[in-house]
Amino acid sequence: MTIRTRLSALLTAHGTPLTAHAHCDLPCGVYDPAQARIEAQSVKAIMEKHNASSDEDFRVRANLIKEERCELVKHHLWVLWTDYFKPEHLATYGNLHDLFWKATKSAGEAKKTNDVAVADRLLEEIDGIADVFWATKK
Amino acid sequence: MTIRTRLSALLTAHGTPLTAHAHCDLPCGVYDPAQARIEAQSVKAIMEKHNASSDEDFRVRANLIKEERCELVKHHLWVLWTDYFKPEHLATYGNLHDLFWKATKSAGEAKKTNDVAVADRLLEEIDGIADVFWATKK
Amino acid sequence: MTIRTRLSALLTAHGTPLTAHAHCDLPCGVYDPAQARIEAQSVKAIMEKHNASSDEDFRVRANLIKEERCELVKHHLWVLWTDYFKPEHLATYGNLHDLFWKATKSAGEAKKTNDVAVADRLLEEIDGIADVFWATKK
Amino acid sequence: MTIRTRLSALLTAHGTPLTAHAHCDLPCGVYDPAQARIEAQSVKAIMEKHNASSDEDFRVRANLIKEERCELVKHHLWVLWTDYFKPEHLATYGNLHDLFWKATKSAGEAKKTNDVAVADRLLEEIDGIADVFWATKK
Amino acid sequence: MTIRTRLSALLTAHGTPLTAHAHCDLPCGVYDPAQARIEAQSVKAIMEKHNASSDEDFRVRANLIKEERCELVKHHLWVLWTDYFKPEHLATYGNLHDLFWKATKSAGEAKKTNDVAVADRLLEEIDGIADVFWATKK
Amino acid sequence: MTIRTRLSALLTAHGTPLTAHAHCDLPCGVYDPAQARIEAQSVKAIMEKHNASSDEDFRVRANLIKEERCELVKHHLWVLWTDYFKPEHLATYGNLHDLFWKATKSAGEAKKTNDVAVADRLLEEIDGIADVFWATKK
Repeated sequence: MTIRTRLSALLTAHGTPLTAHAHCDLPCGVYDPAQARIEAQSVKAIMEKHNASSDEDFRVRANLIKEERCELVKHHLWVLWTDYFKPEHLATYGNLHDLFWKATKSAGEAKKTNDVAVADRLLEEIDGIADVFWATKK
Repeated sequence: MTIRTRLSALLTAHGTPLTAHAHCDLPCGVYDPAQARIEAQSVKAIMEKHNASSDEDFRVRANLIKEERCELVKHHLWVLWTDYFKPEHLATYGNLHDLFWKATKSAGEAKKTNDVAVADRLLEEIDGIADVFWATKK
Repeated sequence: MTIRTRLSALLTAHGTPLTAHAHCDLPCGVYDPAQARIEAQSVKAIMEKHNASSDEDFRVRANLIKEERCELVKHHLWVLWTDYFKPEHLATYGNLHDLFWKATKSAGEAKKTNDVAVADRLLEEIDGIADVFWATKK
Repeated sequence: MTIRTRLSALLTAHGTPLTAHAHCDLPCGVYDPAQARIEAQSVKAIMEKHNASSDEDFRVRANLIKEERCELVKHHLWVLWTDYFKPEHLATYGNLHDLFWKATKSAGEAKKTNDVAVADRLLEEIDGIADVFWATKK
Repeated sequence: MTIRTRLSALLTAHGTPLTAHAHCDLPCGVYDPAQARIEAQSVKAIMEKHNASSDEDFRVRANLIKEERCELVKHHLWVLWTDYFKPEHLATYGNLHDLFWKATKSAGEAKKTNDVAVADRLLEEIDGIADVFWATKK
Repeated sequence: MTIRTRLSALLTAHGTPLTAHAHCDLPCGVYDPAQARIEAQSVKAIMEKHNASSDEDFRVRANLIKEERCELVKHHLWVLWTDYFKPEHLATYGNLHDLFWKATKSAGEAKKTNDVAVADRLLEEIDGIADVFWATKK
């Protein structure tokens, strides 16, 4: 039994998710806010590396990669919003639309700045979405 | 303190990863085998849905989406192999190259079949890689 | 009959070309719901061609191209929702989020069916969004 | 002043939305030069914003987004040239090939410069193509 | 034994790589019709495998991959036409535009059929373009 | 006059196309290390043009295009490694995995630098892979 398998068993026993879940448009029924969080963590790390460097070529690369990563954050969140959530969820979580609107706007803002505070806010907003998501999965 | 935050704290205390990590080509230094596993889980779910359906259009869609998901599995594994692992890891894990070669070959095989056993083998191989990965992160 | 529908009829009668507007993530400030409508019209035409054919290869191609076109509809609508609309618009158009949620869900549904009624509903929903969009541009 | 330019002026004066048409490779039979024009307008707007800014990160982003938008202009024009136009059109419009060659070359040139005059020329060339296109649709 | 096989053997015997040339939009100045030919050969091989199989899932995959490969043929040819060739080449090769128009149309036709004769014609047209290309490089 | 130039001239004189081989995921059975080499040559040319220029916008474009080209090198090599090579090849070429690991690592390194020596090393490593590849094709 691998560490991972044991951990999965442990967490399953607690009704807690461990492994990340994805989606496809079939739909395959596999979703997870972790996909957006992954890219947002990357965005934050890129900003920090950008700000710590004075090399022109490096900063160009940091900016262009951040652009792509922010787009991925937006994409993963949009998919979750449109594909996973159903009208019955909206009845319980009246602010659902707003959570996604603000988070995707923050991801767009993160393209335009290297201010780490924007990445931190984005991460918090994704965590807020994750809380709702996992509550609906119980 | 949100559920997620508490869980993160709990797992961090045990030296166990919870959140999924990604990469970018900067490099941002964020990697995680979970990205490949996500897509592999999706591949398995697609196969099951394909096999349970007799609708021609649905099966076409299942096949084409599976094609994309398998490609993503391969991509995430290749990135991990080339970008994350270093020569010193190879010294400790002599079968590292083979683990990745076999897992990416399984992902290619999963394009060509709807046999769930192939998806299961792929998932096991990714878990094997994850074990090595997390051992190097300790 | 909406303003847009009437205008379309009028212009079609004159065989006259129409400009459209796009966006980029700078932002360049150029947006237009026409980008989503373009792809939705394509989705409808593909469904009609699919349904009129009994050739297996053709139907496969129709399904796969429709998959891509529906994805483009979703993408263009998501961009408009997150990037163009501002909090002040929401104050005036309280159903803004719902308009986008329903339209993108219809685009997802159009992946799964060749029922032209779904494409027609999608086109109507995009026209509803276009009415709001152009009202905010006055 | 072309028909298109006049129409644009007319419609802009009325603040009225305009439909546009796309294509797919089925073919679905839906084409429109507006897709190329959309991206070319974006290219021009990006150049103007680039030239008005002295922020290094912003200029990097402007350059990379312009690169993508120019590529889209080329792609949309190439599709129109190869997929929509037929030998009988060429009989009537002997300069058809040249119109597309020059316009796509201008789109390539727009990648390499932030001189707005290049974007203006590109827009004019696209309008010239649009005139031919709509003449063939009558 | 084909010319290529013999040539490869010859070159391998000399330890000399068979180089090929590409392009990028800088421009880097590296072009080669081989990129289009590669994909066209793949298109032909896919058709043959499709026609030899009666497995539904395999035929779906063959059709969707052929769709992508044909698109790549078109793309590589379009790039060569717009980016590499200059007005002075056109003065010498008056049929240049037509060569590219016909070849890209054949690539589009190859999406819609599994008739190997179409792939053969496409390969011949690409070879015709390659002859002109290499003549201009002398 | 390089070997290639002479070879091209020779082949052109015989009206024989210089073919190249590609792959697709069917698999179509068409592979060739030339696809990776093409992009690597482009990477080298981009570095040279970058280093010879003092224009900020040009250097930005060079860096972003190089980023894409390096990614293509990695992709083509990964495909060759996973899809073409079989266990029996590994028995003969015990260093096969290492050849690919080092070459893809060099391609990643070429993203981060404009040192032409890195591109030269990458080209040599690809040539080494090509030697093995063509030996297995005999």
